[in-house]
Amino acid sequence: LPSGQESIHDLFGYDGIKIIQRDDLTSFSVDSVLLADFVTIPKRVERILDLGCGNAPIPLYLSLKTKKPIIGVELQKTAVDLARRSVLLNHLENQITILEADIKTLHERFDSSFFDLIVSNPPFFQVHANSPLNNLEQLTIARHEVAIDLETLFLQAKRLLSTGGNFVLVHRVERLEEIIVLSHRHHLAVKRLRFVYPKRGLDAILVLVETRNNSRPGGLTLEEPFYVMEADGTYTPEMKRIHFFGKK
Amino acid sequence: LPSGQESIHDLFGYDGIKIIQRDDLTSFSVDSVLLADFVTIPKRVERILDLGCGNAPIPLYLSLKTKKPIIGVELQKTAVDLARRSVLLNHLENQITILEADIKTLHERFDSSFFDLIVSNPPFFQVHANSPLNNLEQLTIARHEVAIDLETLFLQAKRLLSTGGNFVLVHRVERLEEIIVLSHRHHLAVKRLRFVYPKRGLDAILVLVETRNNSRPGGLTLEEPFYVMEADGTYTPEMKRIHFFGKK
Repeated sequence: LPSGQESIHDLFGYDGIKIIQRDDLTSFSVDSVLLADFVTIPKRVERILDLGCGNAPIPLYLSLKTKKPIIGVELQKTAVDLARRSVLLNHLENQITILEADIKTLHERFDSSFFDLIVSNPPFFQVHANSPLNNLEQLTIARHEVAIDLETLFLQAKRLLSTGGNFVLVHRVERLEEIIVLSHRHHLAVKRLRFVYPKRGLDAILVLVETRNNSRPGGLTLEEPFYVMEADGTYTPEMKRIHFFGKK
Repeated sequence: LPSGQESIHDLFGYDGIKIIQRDDLTSFSVDSVLLADFVTIPKRVERILDLGCGNAPIPLYLSLKTKKPIIGVELQKTAVDLARRSVLLNHLENQITILEADIKTLHERFDSSFFDLIVSNPPFFQVHANSPLNNLEQLTIARHEVAIDLETLFLQAKRLLSTGGNFVLVHRVERLEEIIVLSHRHHLAVKRLRFVYPKRGLDAILVLVETRNNSRPGGLTLEEPFYVMEADGTYTPEMKRIHFFGKK
């Protein structure tokens, strides 16, 4: 049973970066690392925001790609605490700031268009009247749209994103239609898509989406599929590249 | 130079089905055959419509999957003529009807919700003031949105489709955002997507889309990628399955 026990893990493949986890909270997930890997950081980017950063796997991973300041926002105090300590553990406190805040009110705290790149690995599951919500409140908030739904997430990303800035997210394939409709509504042109297949021969489960603020629609690139596993269950070379089992 | 010369071809792999082409018109394309392969025909389907059927590769191919009546609609007289003769050549005149008509006025000819399955391989390219349109009018109409644009195509499909009926199309990946926004607007829930990669290692170019009329959004299936060629330029087993070079 989960007991609140903490442990320190290598952040999925990058030798040197460590992340602190607790067994009763969501672990950093493959989704977050795939998203961080998918993100490109144009030179013009000055400020980066992670909406719902959890224990900060994305900011930590992105610190390997850029030296620009990254702000991670998280509602849950326990996750904020883990995230802050992971930042300190990796000596990244000059680059990464973890803010305990509600995404829904962020526009009161930052000027509009303040960020040039916004990333998010949001809760995946919609809440219905009869949803079997997880008993642990933290897991529920991280996985279900209790604290924020996709529509509000898009609204807040739009408010905080500069013109030409990118909003990049990972989500379940079932939500793709909604994601594209919301992107379109907010003039966030869908520029890159990449689908994540758990295994060769199975349907895709996740989609990585890059949108650009106030850009013209069109010019969408559909990147190569990302396979986590080969048909025989072994990791693909690309997954190994990220996972980096063979550490130096 | 194209001379209007006709020739009879095997319809891409299916021994027995022949198609008549002319060297100054668009040949049946891989797109059409991939679309016909992608289409599923539920048992409840009673009437099938192909919007912009050209020389009828899709109706001909679908005749291998169903015995239900198929109507192909085509604006261009020369293509209509070829299509009708291909239907006769294959003795499918009791199943396939080719109608010379403008998609834009089809709702005056058929009751609304008349069809249970509508397929289309529409013109892919938008027309801009400075578009380098093809000199041959037929090619221009088949490839560019001169006679019909995507918005009108969706409007007409919606009018003619029964509740629960499927509208299935193939298009360029760049138009995916627009396709999903139009689907959403007309309450055509996107149910299946399949991306077509010309070759392993390259970005996808085409997308196959199945939508269902008045169905709830969600439950989208992202099928395995379709690769036309392996990285070394040889056809993939799946392409061979369709192409069926090794005829009986």
